[in-house]
Amino acid sequence: MTRKIDIYDSTLRDGAQAQGISYSVEDKIKIVERLDDLGVRYIEAGNPGSNPKDLEFFTRVSALKLNSARIIAFGSTRKVGIPVAQDSNVQSLLKAGTDAIAIFGKSWDYQVSHILRTSLEENLAMVGDTIRYLKQQGKEVVFDAEHFFDGYKANPDYALQVLSAAADAGADCLCLCDTNGGAFPQEIFDITAQVAGRFSAAIGIHCHNDGEVAVANSLMAVQAGATHVQGTINGIGERCGNANLCSIIPNLQLKLGFECIPPERMVHLTSTARFVSEIANMPHSEKAPYVGNDAFAHKGGMHIDAVQKNPISYEHINPEQVGNSRRILMSEVAGRSTLLARINAIEPALTKDSPETQKVVDRLKELEHEGYQFETAESSFELVVRKLLGKYQPFFELKEFKVIVNEPSVNGVNSSAMIKISVGDQEEITAAEGDGPVNALDNAVRKALERFYPAIKEIKLTDYKVRVLDSDKASAAKVRVLIESTDHREYWTTIGVSTDVIDASYRALVDAIEYKLVREQERQA
Amino acid sequence: MTRKIDIYDSTLRDGAQAQGISYSVEDKIKIVERLDDLGVRYIEAGNPGSNPKDLEFFTRVSALKLNSARIIAFGSTRKVGIPVAQDSNVQSLLKAGTDAIAIFGKSWDYQVSHILRTSLEENLAMVGDTIRYLKQQGKEVVFDAEHFFDGYKANPDYALQVLSAAADAGADCLCLCDTNGGAFPQEIFDITAQVAGRFSAAIGIHCHNDGEVAVANSLMAVQAGATHVQGTINGIGERCGNANLCSIIPNLQLKLGFECIPPERMVHLTSTARFVSEIANMPHSEKAPYVGNDAFAHKGGMHIDAVQKNPISYEHINPEQVGNSRRILMSEVAGRSTLLARINAIEPALTKDSPETQKVVDRLKELEHEGYQFETAESSFELVVRKLLGKYQPFFELKEFKVIVNEPSVNGVNSSAMIKISVGDQEEITAAEGDGPVNALDNAVRKALERFYPAIKEIKLTDYKVRVLDSDKASAAKVRVLIESTDHREYWTTIGVSTDVIDASYRALVDAIEYKLVREQERQA
Repeated sequence: MTRKIDIYDSTLRDGAQAQGISYSVEDKIKIVERLDDLGVRYIEAGNPGSNPKDLEFFTRVSALKLNSARIIAFGSTRKVGIPVAQDSNVQSLLKAGTDAIAIFGKSWDYQVSHILRTSLEENLAMVGDTIRYLKQQGKEVVFDAEHFFDGYKANPDYALQVLSAAADAGADCLCLCDTNGGAFPQEIFDITAQVAGRFSAAIGIHCHNDGEVAVANSLMAVQAGATHVQGTINGIGERCGNANLCSIIPNLQLKLGFECIPPERMVHLTSTARFVSEIANMPHSEKAPYVGNDAFAHKGGMHIDAVQKNPISYEHINPEQVGNSRRILMSEVAGRSTLLARINAIEPALTKDSPETQKVVDRLKELEHEGYQFETAESSFELVVRKLLGKYQPFFELKEFKVIVNEPSVNGVNSSAMIKISVGDQEEITAAEGDGPVNALDNAVRKALERFYPAIKEIKLTDYKVRVLDSDKASAAKVRVLIESTDHREYWTTIGVSTDVIDASYRALVDAIEYKLVREQERQA
Repeated sequence: MTRKIDIYDSTLRDGAQAQGISYSVEDKIKIVERLDDLGVRYIEAGNPGSNPKDLEFFTRVSALKLNSARIIAFGSTRKVGIPVAQDSNVQSLLKAGTDAIAIFGKSWDYQVSHILRTSLEENLAMVGDTIRYLKQQGKEVVFDAEHFFDGYKANPDYALQVLSAAADAGADCLCLCDTNGGAFPQEIFDITAQVAGRFSAAIGIHCHNDGEVAVANSLMAVQAGATHVQGTINGIGERCGNANLCSIIPNLQLKLGFECIPPERMVHLTSTARFVSEIANMPHSEKAPYVGNDAFAHKGGMHIDAVQKNPISYEHINPEQVGNSRRILMSEVAGRSTLLARINAIEPALTKDSPETQKVVDRLKELEHEGYQFETAESSFELVVRKLLGKYQPFFELKEFKVIVNEPSVNGVNSSAMIKISVGDQEEITAAEGDGPVNALDNAVRKALERFYPAIKEIKLTDYKVRVLDSDKASAAKVRVLIESTDHREYWTTIGVSTDVIDASYRALVDAIEYKLVREQERQA
C-alpha cells in the first residue's frame, strides 16, 4: 500500500526569509491558489504576531474556497513568564482565524539556557501551555521542534522531553527541525527512527540546505518513519534555502512509492515552480532538478544520440510526468544530427550532407563566436536558419534610428527615438517617447510597423534580461539581451548581442516581431 | 586516524557539458592553477579524442609546475571490434601526454545491448584491452563505470563483471557512476558497500544531481568505503549538474572527519568557487552552501539577534573556515539593531532611539519601495547613510547630460555623450564617445571628473548587471543596475534604479566613483 505523506509548504513564511523576497498580499493570495491547485496538504502562510501585513492576508484568504489545503498561521510559544492567555503573539495567532496553527519551541538545552535565557522546566511549560491552550480552542496544532537534531545530539533526554511536553498537550504533529541545516542523511535517519516509534502524533521533518543535503535528509526522515514533510517551492529560504519541495515531491512519489499530492496534479509541478519564481521575482534556476529548463536538456553529441535512441540512457524520469520537457541544445558540441532535426522542422528535404546544413553549422559557429547563444533563444535561431535557407521574406528594412537620452528630463520625458523604415517601396518615418531609451525605441518600432502589420499589437514583452559578456571590458563590454514575448498563445525568446545595450535590445526586439509575423504567415497559409 | 579522500575535479571536462559553458585554452589554464592551489588530487581536463582544441591545452598544461594535482585526459574505451593500438581515441589520449588517464565504459547490460549494440563479452574485452594497454604505457588509470548503479540494480552480476575486467587489467581506481543522477542515498550506500570489499583498487564515486541528492550520495558512498570522489566546482555540469565539490569537501573535511585537501587550503574554497563562476561567466549562486554570498547571511530580526549573541544559533560552521563571511542584511525585517551596527560604523554616537536612526529607517523604506535593494549594494547604502547624517561632502554636481545613439553608426561609433558638471565654483563641460551609451556616458563622467580627482583613474568596473523589476511593464519596466568596481585593493557594489537603463547606470556609476572618493578621503585622514 502507498504511504501517504502530508506536504507542508512554507514558501510564504520561511521562504519569505530569503534575501530579496518581499510578497504583497496579492502575491500571497495567488501563491496560495497555485499551491492548493498542486494539492499540498498545508500552506504555512505567515506569522501574524511579527508582521501586521499578515493579518490583512489572513482575512482575505479565509474567503477563498480551497480544494484540499489547510492554511497555517505560524508563531512562537508563549513568552517566558507570561500566562498563555495574555501572550500577544498567541492572541495574534488566534486572530488569524485559521483551523490549524504551527508553534515553534526550543528543543536544544543550550539554546534554552543561552539564547532564551530561561530554565529547562519553564521551556517545557511554555511548549505545553501554548499547545494545550490552542487545542482547547479547537485548533489542529503542529509543533516545530527547533534545532531538534543538534539538541538531540547534545542532550537526547531533554530533546525527547520537549517532544513529550508537546505530545502530552495534544500536538497533532511533532516536526523535527534541522534549523541550522548542518545535519547529515545517516544521522537524520537514525534520530528520526528513534523518535518515530515513541509517539502517536505524526512525525514531521523540516530541513535547511546549508550542507546541500536538505532533500536527502527529508527523504531519509520519511524512510525512517516521518509522514509530514516541510519545505518550500524551489527551496527558497534564508541562507542556502529550505528543503526543496519541487525535488522532494517527485522523488518520493515517482520513485520511492509514497503519495504526496494527487497523482494527476504532478504535471503542474514545473508550472507551479516557475510561477513562484516569477511572483518572487527571482530568476528561475535553469539547473533545478525536475523543474529547471536544463533538467532534461542535452548538449554533448554522444548523449544526444543516445537519448534519441532511448531516453532512459540519460534521463531518470520522463520529463512530461512533472510537466517539463526534453530539450536538445544548439551548440558546437551538439553534433550535426541535433542541428538537422531543427533544420528539418523548417526544410524537411535537407540531410546531414547537404551544403545548406554546412552553411548553418558555419553561421552558428560565427554567431557563437560573437557572443550569441541559441540554447535559450530558439526563436532567433529559427530566424537565422530561415534566412540562410531562403525561407524568409524580410518584413521591413531599417533605414536609420536615433535615440536621445536627456538628463534632466524635458517635461517629464527623458528618452525619445526617431526611426525610419521601409516596407516594400513605402517608407515610414516616425518617433516616440518612452521611459528610457529601450522603451522609446520599442514604441517607435511598433508605431512605424503597426500600420503594415496590425498583428504586432498582440505582442507583449514579458521579460527582458541583460548579461554582460566580457566584464573585464567594463562599460564597453559586449552585452547579450534576451527578450521573452508572448501573444497569449505562445511564448518565445529572442536574442541580440552588441557592445551597445540599445543596439542589442533593438536586434532582440526585431527578432521578436519577425518571429510573430512568421507564425502569423504560417497560420494564414 | 583521518581517512584521506582523493578529490577528482571535472570542472573542465564534465563541467564543460553544462549549458552556456565554453572555455578558452587560457581559461582552462587559469582554472588548473586555482584547483592545484586549492589542493585537489586530480584535474580531469579534457577529452582530446572528441575535442581537438583540447590537444593544444594539454601541450600548454604540461609546462606548468603543479604542486599536488595530476592532470587527467579523459576518453572512452576502444571502439567495438577495433584493436586497441589502432583506436584513434585511445591514441589521442596518449598524445595528451598526461601521467594519468580516465577511461569510461558501460556497466549496464541494457546500455551495452541497446545503445552500444554489441555483445556483453565484447564490452568486457573493450574495457580490459584498453586499460591493459594504457597500463603497459605506464599510465595511472581510473575506470569510470558508466550507469553503474542503474546497471547493478538491473543485473548485479554483469555490473560486477565489468569492474572485474577493469581491475584484472590493472585499473588503479574503479569509479562508480550514477550517470543519470537518479539514485538515492540509501541505495548508493548499500551498493557501494557491496563493491568496496571486493577489489584492491580504490573505489570512486561520480554523481549527478537530477534528484537533488548528488552531494548526499557522494557522502554516503564515502561512508560506505569509497576513497575517491569526483565532482565539479559549484556543481556545474550537464542538466542539473554534477556533485558539487564546494559542498562535498567541507562536509567531509570539516564535519565528518575525512581529509580531502590540505587543511590550510580550506580558506581558499570560496574564492576558488567565485573564480570559476567568473571564468565560466555564470552568475555565482547566492544561495550556494558554504561559498554563496547568502550562505551565512541573516535577515529575520530574531535570527540576527540570536546570531549576534552566539553564531552557533543559526550557523552550522564558522564562515571563515571556508573563506566566506557572515552578512547581516539590510531590509525591513532586519530589525533596528542590525541597522544600528551599520550606522555606528559611520557615526558611533547614535543609538536605537536617536532621531537620525529613525530618519535612516524611513529613507531605507522609501528607497526599497522604489526598487532599491541594499542587501548586495552595501556601498550605495553607506553613501545613503552618510548623506542623511551629514557625513558627506558632495564631490560634484551634475548639471546636464545628453546621450545619443545612432544606427547606422557614424565612422564606426554609435554612441556619444555630452556632460556638464561643476566642482565647487568650477564648471566642466566635455563629451566622449563609446561602445554603446553606457560606455559613452561612463567615459564622459570620468573625463569630466579626472582633472579634479585623479584617483578615479584607479577604478575598474568589473561587473555590470541589469535586472528588470516589473517585467509586465515590458520595455517601460523599472530596471535595477548593479555595478561592481575595484581599485585592486577593494571591491565594492553600487546600485541605481530607474525606468531608464542609462539613468540607472549613471546613478550606480556615480555611487561607484563617490564611494572610491570617500575611501580616499579616509585614507588621507
